[in-house]
Amino acid sequence: MEDLNTADSLLNKRLSRREMLKIAGVGGIGLLLGGGGAYGALAVKETLAKNSAPSKGDASGSRVGFYGEHQAGIITPAQHFLSFASFDLTTSSLADVRQLFQSWTEAAAAMTSGDLIGNSNNNLNLPPSDTGETAGLSPSKLTITFGVGPSFFDNRFGLAGKRPTTFGELPKFRGDALQTEWCGGDIGVQVCADDLQVAFHAVRNLARIARGTAVLRWMQDGFQRTGPADPSNGTPRNLMGFKDGTGNPDIADAQAMKEIVWAGSGDGAAWMKGGSYLVARRIRMRIEIWDRSTLDDQERTFGRHRDTGAPLGMRDEFAPLDLNAKNTAGEPALPMNSHSRLAHMDGATKILRRAYSYTGGMDAKTGQLDAGLFFISYQRDIQKQFIPMQQILAASDKLNEYIVHVGSAAFACFPGTRPGGYIGETLF
Amino acid sequence: MEDLNTADSLLNKRLSRREMLKIAGVGGIGLLLGGGGAYGALAVKETLAKNSAPSKGDASGSRVGFYGEHQAGIITPAQHFLSFASFDLTTSSLADVRQLFQSWTEAAAAMTSGDLIGNSNNNLNLPPSDTGETAGLSPSKLTITFGVGPSFFDNRFGLAGKRPTTFGELPKFRGDALQTEWCGGDIGVQVCADDLQVAFHAVRNLARIARGTAVLRWMQDGFQRTGPADPSNGTPRNLMGFKDGTGNPDIADAQAMKEIVWAGSGDGAAWMKGGSYLVARRIRMRIEIWDRSTLDDQERTFGRHRDTGAPLGMRDEFAPLDLNAKNTAGEPALPMNSHSRLAHMDGATKILRRAYSYTGGMDAKTGQLDAGLFFISYQRDIQKQFIPMQQILAASDKLNEYIVHVGSAAFACFPGTRPGGYIGETLF
Repeated sequence: MEDLNTADSLLNKRLSRREMLKIAGVGGIGLLLGGGGAYGALAVKETLAKNSAPSKGDASGSRVGFYGEHQAGIITPAQHFLSFASFDLTTSSLADVRQLFQSWTEAAAAMTSGDLIGNSNNNLNLPPSDTGETAGLSPSKLTITFGVGPSFFDNRFGLAGKRPTTFGELPKFRGDALQTEWCGGDIGVQVCADDLQVAFHAVRNLARIARGTAVLRWMQDGFQRTGPADPSNGTPRNLMGFKDGTGNPDIADAQAMKEIVWAGSGDGAAWMKGGSYLVARRIRMRIEIWDRSTLDDQERTFGRHRDTGAPLGMRDEFAPLDLNAKNTAGEPALPMNSHSRLAHMDGATKILRRAYSYTGGMDAKTGQLDAGLFFISYQRDIQKQFIPMQQILAASDKLNEYIVHVGSAAFACFPGTRPGGYIGETLF
Repeated sequence: MEDLNTADSLLNKRLSRREMLKIAGVGGIGLLLGGGGAYGALAVKETLAKNSAPSKGDASGSRVGFYGEHQAGIITPAQHFLSFASFDLTTSSLADVRQLFQSWTEAAAAMTSGDLIGNSNNNLNLPPSDTGETAGLSPSKLTITFGVGPSFFDNRFGLAGKRPTTFGELPKFRGDALQTEWCGGDIGVQVCADDLQVAFHAVRNLARIARGTAVLRWMQDGFQRTGPADPSNGTPRNLMGFKDGTGNPDIADAQAMKEIVWAGSGDGAAWMKGGSYLVARRIRMRIEIWDRSTLDDQERTFGRHRDTGAPLGMRDEFAPLDLNAKNTAGEPALPMNSHSRLAHMDGATKILRRAYSYTGGMDAKTGQLDAGLFFISYQRDIQKQFIPMQQILAASDKLNEYIVHVGSAAFACFPGTRPGGYIGETLF
């Protein structure tokens, strides 16, 4: 019966999308507007225009608007794949930086619309302006999110005075085993898409556009369990087999996003209003050791049941954490050093997590798998939100037996922009 | 209109699947049989059994049967993702090898069905027998294909006399820049799935099962443009932006597969009957140089138009190569050193390609992207099919300006097995 119900539900979804398309075709775009305001109307209008182009295919359901008050890719529901790129600037000219972000903005707007970059893709005498491997593919919900690191505010560009007061290099946390090649960067670009080829294409073409101005410092691909094959559409599992992100705040809750994610004009710098601060941590899992530990040990490490994701002693994944609950032995149901208990803190400090699993193949030095979690979080204030949480985890988390932080970076991600503007314009 | 038609077609697909499930639920399995014979019947029966399990979700459309005359994953339509693992044996006992393949067969049959491995996934006092990150996911068309390399037939296992007469280490080709860490291996395992998490899970758990008997030698993930986002369902493009695989033989043509892919009892060794010989080449692309070349140069390199994939001067991707065609200047329309012309050879020598793009992030030594093509081909006879083709390409292919072969391996992939048997039983 479950399967029939699933089929029914999919059928209904399909029907209503078909009806929507019919209505849109006959009655114009007004009916489709869900309150997105001017940007929303523009996006829908453009989407419909795309749909009439025969080569475009199913773009309507697979496009995330690029323009808006905020950059896309922050509270956008997490796509299946990540390509995260960190760049170092090789110029010391602010005009070059401005030009780079203008070019990147133009390219990002094209790519997120499913278009090839530039207009010399059919001129035999020139290198094509787009490398072409996404030709014919849908936008795949591509988002591209730009930020600058603390190092950007040194003396090179005369912007030291613009560094947000709340923004600097992350402190070294207990147990950190950071590798320079996975840390820092003048610029951070988070690319997410439902198609890994689309994500890779974006990073590659951004790097190409940056030649002469910036070079790649590091790059990390990531993945989640992916859509067509996931019937439950539930919380994805990390490579330890546990559901990851259960306690994340609701991205549909605008008030929560305002409190947790979006910088106001008083959050470090006026130019960051509508932006958000990003923390990235490359967390390698000691998979071989984890795989030898008992289920009891694993569940006590997370404070959750592996199967359901529910807090220990509970049955519902989304049951609130009860820090006072006792088990039958009279001990805390959630061990004092369990990950979920410690990350919960006082219950008031929250971040928006956007983590992906990664695998870097085999570590030739050890013969073990190089795999783990590429942790990303967004917050209004790294000092008030991420750092105190990570200090507690670094000091006491039982999970530390099985993980090691090898990469670290922070980026101040700009507010969004309007057609005709460019990402970074509030700073440059 | 295009979109409405697409929606209609999807609607019909969904409807008929729903009807099928209803019919199956009421009328038994007979109606669903498409002539797959005993194996097919078994597979459908098992699929239906799965469907009645409430946690299983949409397994029916996403499962590739594990058992059969041939191993799955060879003429199976290419899934979106690849995880290729090469192992070296650390034992010198044939009994250990046999046990390993028996355990691997059991695990592969479970994983390709969407089941967790083993029966101790809920015992608190034991390490779970499955690492669990695919719990709740569908099988995602997972296939796992096993083979042994030339090194397997040295003196360790007393099987030197069983080495197929046509099977040995690949010769060094002109221009090869092979790196030991990407070459060879006693055992090769090709894992493909529509979900990267499902593919990674399989390699990880196979490596875990092998502990004490075999260790990972190298591992490579790969991707193609992926399904939900690809409206055209056309030939995928490689990272040079060109369609890749246009000239591949038709996997639905059983006679062609018999001639090209499947070893007969006379193809090297009787135990290989129904198996196939695999060649893997890790081909790094000099992306930065390629991206600077003109479209004309790129198209003359492949002998095809980038946009359509058609042979130069033609409009249809699938137009046959006309080696005698001239362009308006009276020169060969397909340049003499173009890749497609050279790979075409006499038109009679064919292989079945099954290539994936790969990216290994940034090459820390050069600051450039480590990306390219993980080439896999299957053939009845490597000496007669792959080697002569690659010798011609290595000597003359214009594409060599832009690529370098850094990894190489060959594996003799076993025939399939039946329930109760195990992969490798014809040899061990």
